Amino acid sequence: METTDQQALSLILFSGTDDKLNAATVLVSGAAALDRRVNVFLQYWGLEAFEKDRIDKDHGASADAGPEGQEWLRKAREMPGHQHWADTLRLAGEIGDVHITACALSMDLFGITKEDLDPMVDGVEGVVSFLLSAEGSQLVFI
Amino acid sequence: METTDQQALSLILFSGTDDKLNAATVLVSGAAALDRRVNVFLQYWGLEAFEKDRIDKDHGASADAGPEGQEWLRKAREMPGHQHWADTLRLAGEIGDVHITACALSMDLFGITKEDLDPMVDGVEGVVSFLLSAEGSQLVFI
Amino acid sequence: METTDQQALSLILFSGTDDKLNAATVLVSGAAALDRRVNVFLQYWGLEAFEKDRIDKDHGASADAGPEGQEWLRKAREMPGHQHWADTLRLAGEIGDVHITACALSMDLFGITKEDLDPMVDGVEGVVSFLLSAEGSQLVFI
Repeated sequence: METTDQQALSLILFSGTDDKLNAATVLVSGAAALDRRVNVFLQYWGLEAFEKDRIDKDHGASADAGPEGQEWLRKAREMPGHQHWADTLRLAGEIGDVHITACALSMDLFGITKEDLDPMVDGVEGVVSFLLSAEGSQLVFI
Repeated sequence: METTDQQALSLILFSGTDDKLNAATVLVSGAAALDRRVNVFLQYWGLEAFEKDRIDKDHGASADAGPEGQEWLRKAREMPGHQHWADTLRLAGEIGDVHITACALSMDLFGITKEDLDPMVDGVEGVVSFLLSAEGSQLVFI
Repeated sequence: METTDQQALSLILFSGTDDKLNAATVLVSGAAALDRRVNVFLQYWGLEAFEKDRIDKDHGASADAGPEGQEWLRKAREMPGHQHWADTLRLAGEIGDVHITACALSMDLFGITKEDLDPMVDGVEGVVSFLLSAEGSQLVFI
């Protein structure tokens, strides 16, 4: 899909808990809906969360949640009409220009190969390559 | 108040612990002091922290703090001259162009209504609307 | 070293766990390798991590890691050829235009003086001063 010359959004996704993955997905979806180009760079726990055999599972909540917040998130997941962030992100990738890559260094650190990752991950790259593609964009770390 | 044409600051406030709320407030106050327009978008635990009956309470510290760091924060709160981040933020809103909105999706998720929120929250909006107002600004996720 | 007129990178380093400090270092090193100017502003636990007598120690992992992730990080540290983030950051400062300052407010809060900090920290400044030097750059909060 063609994108306008609006400012791109570049997102370093470091965190791997469902609340932050939800927040990241909302941001990516919003930018994609605005025809903005979106680059997502997966590092550490964010990368781990995209492993094929883990992506659709429960990833818990950040420490901010507390026990009460975790209970809320659990209930939200069981509500009718609830959509998992991974499905929302796949959809954003279909309607918009969303490019997801994995950090080569994190892949090495965790011993993860491209085949271990969900197919929505487009490839593996180093931070310099990511920064080049992120030039002029809004850069966010989650 | 008139703002200059300096770059705006847009802040997605996701976290709800006092250390991160302090850091966010310092950033907002600094930008406001520079006559920069500031947009704050409250999500998840950041939104929860702005509930009328919770905002002035103790919100704990992020996991980074450790027991020792939490003790430091507790002592800092009891020091003479200490100002709660909520008061600092209200002041920043009086002297500067600070616009605080709540994320519509998070409001739904937590069952929070506009009436539940501290009056310094100006309204409720979706992420697309927030991103439009954030165009061309420095975008930060805390 | 001369830097090109590429967009600068400004990094507020709030977090103090080794996984986030690693991620921050990768980002700084990548930007420095691209001849981009880099400003790092140390706050809270990020500042604490740069104390002379703590910087080379184990700073643990963020809550995202979980016990399994923490074990992975521990093993990664013991691998041959592993370089501590502090050493990588020192190297980035030698090859690139990396400027590290400590947040004056956080220094006060923790009772830290300039002498307590690792020599790679160039100075102490307030948030307004940091924001001025960060104008026009990509601003990231870690």
